[in-house]
Amino acid sequence: MNKDQILLGHGDGGRLTRNLVEDIFAKAFANPALKPLADAALIRFGRAQLAFTTDSYVVKPIFFPGGDIGQLAVFGTCNDLAVMGSKPVYLSCGFILEEGLELDTLKKVVGSMKLSAQKAGVKLVTGDTKVVERGSGDKIFINTAGIGERLAWPSMGSRLKPGDEILLSGTVGDHGIAVLCARGELKFSLPVESDCGPVWPMVKALRRSGIKVKWMRDPTRGGVAGALNELANGRDFGIEVFEDKIPLTPAVDSACEVLGLDPLYLANEGKVICIVQKGQAEPARKILRKFNSGRSAEIFGRVIPDPKGKVIAKTGIGGARMLSMPAGAPLPRIC
Amino acid sequence: MNKDQILLGHGDGGRLTRNLVEDIFAKAFANPALKPLADAALIRFGRAQLAFTTDSYVVKPIFFPGGDIGQLAVFGTCNDLAVMGSKPVYLSCGFILEEGLELDTLKKVVGSMKLSAQKAGVKLVTGDTKVVERGSGDKIFINTAGIGERLAWPSMGSRLKPGDEILLSGTVGDHGIAVLCARGELKFSLPVESDCGPVWPMVKALRRSGIKVKWMRDPTRGGVAGALNELANGRDFGIEVFEDKIPLTPAVDSACEVLGLDPLYLANEGKVICIVQKGQAEPARKILRKFNSGRSAEIFGRVIPDPKGKVIAKTGIGGARMLSMPAGAPLPRIC
Repeated sequence: MNKDQILLGHGDGGRLTRNLVEDIFAKAFANPALKPLADAALIRFGRAQLAFTTDSYVVKPIFFPGGDIGQLAVFGTCNDLAVMGSKPVYLSCGFILEEGLELDTLKKVVGSMKLSAQKAGVKLVTGDTKVVERGSGDKIFINTAGIGERLAWPSMGSRLKPGDEILLSGTVGDHGIAVLCARGELKFSLPVESDCGPVWPMVKALRRSGIKVKWMRDPTRGGVAGALNELANGRDFGIEVFEDKIPLTPAVDSACEVLGLDPLYLANEGKVICIVQKGQAEPARKILRKFNSGRSAEIFGRVIPDPKGKVIAKTGIGGARMLSMPAGAPLPRIC
Repeated sequence: MNKDQILLGHGDGGRLTRNLVEDIFAKAFANPALKPLADAALIRFGRAQLAFTTDSYVVKPIFFPGGDIGQLAVFGTCNDLAVMGSKPVYLSCGFILEEGLELDTLKKVVGSMKLSAQKAGVKLVTGDTKVVERGSGDKIFINTAGIGERLAWPSMGSRLKPGDEILLSGTVGDHGIAVLCARGELKFSLPVESDCGPVWPMVKALRRSGIKVKWMRDPTRGGVAGALNELANGRDFGIEVFEDKIPLTPAVDSACEVLGLDPLYLANEGKVICIVQKGQAEPARKILRKFNSGRSAEIFGRVIPDPKGKVIAKTGIGGARMLSMPAGAPLPRIC
């Protein structure tokens, strides 16, 4: 491991990624809109309040059970806008294609992006295509940037307090395990599909209901543990997660058991974590459960006064373990 | 050459690129903002009139005389906004890094982006980093998307008519030749530097002056010939270019001579082509020449009634040749 080089772990959404972002990017580009290092930047043009975000997609393989790189590229970026309380409206799209890619493969991915954009209610309005020589890329990389319209939601961003409750809109780890299956790295086959899909319909329903949501995040790279650690890190509160409340399909559960993976660190691509004001978790769960993608929604944690800055998982039988920031165990190219 | 696969030529900004965009992307994503297939999409939020664009940068090598991939990634996207009459305001930035990249190289590129963003007056507000395995990428690919503010400029987009005059803000081919030099593909060394830089200051000055600019484009991939062909293709006018008026440094001129390249097909990264209403070219040239990057600005062509849809180059001695859409002679990874 060479400390002076980029490692696969720099891309896993964990500690190394965070270090890179904080040490190199945030310092160089310091400005108020970038500073929160949130899923999307909040920007303004006159009276228009917008959110702006970008993600590159390098998932391998590009087709996997339940989705493909095109779906990811649309929903992933839309979801980053949605969790900032913003309605996704416009997307840009940049392709980096490897020489020799079958045109049919490209058409299939583009067709999938088209359907996903319709489903997400966004328009793809500008794009770019580059081609690199065989061996300088890997089939298709896609970047999308998205612009969303911020909607009034006064509770969003307000101070988190002990007692605030944490929900998850559905089962965890489906995307991560689906991609591992598609890579043929498992010695067994599993009925697992990626959860790749839009979260905006659920977010919109929560907002309409007037539920006091204070914070949201879509737990992609780094999983639920990564997202909660990013939130708690350096703050004056801790987070407690109830292990026996974490929604999990039996297939993902057994895959994790066999492979020694913790589902809380696996990527999700159609889930949202919501922190709501104490007492509002039950009505929030009811709303989420009205959606097919939210049918397994669960209240799975809460904000606690101590230990500050940490994320703790409580087991059913009274044990506790620290959920640290993911590091050093990358599943590269999961999204 | 396999017709069913992606070729390097699909990325050269010429006919194959255009076919790909029209046959696959434009059909799938059909919507009014995408339809013009311009450098940036014109979008609107309430009263805010914005331009939105994206480009991925895969230039090889990443450092070259006069610039690097970081500068390109900032100025290239800002220039796409500027030529739509929009002031560049916000950028997103997505990195795809190859495992093993030296951190110092990344820092150098990021430092260069920081300076370029300051120079261009834009804020980089959101970003993403992915890492791919050694051999699945090539050091650094960067995508930037940009949002600009459209400023009132009533002449922009109005109908082109025979007699309208065409200006170029400076010498052509500098970027293309600088990158070729940096690749070590030339057997001689040349005092050539990329023209990589912002065009917004020149565009802004033209707008302030009240000059009736009808159309602008930054002639990057595909060069001046590519940009003018894209404009003329299928329209009810032609374009005439005066070969002896094309600004060219002696170094680029000799390089092109030796290598058998036509400078009109080489990439530029800090130039703008402007079409102004008949009679306004002289004052426009004066304004452009006030800028260091516009010191060689020239009136180099005009809109003609026939041949419709074509671009013709007139030589000093009365000859003429067709400048067709670039195709089949790619200089891959020029930007």
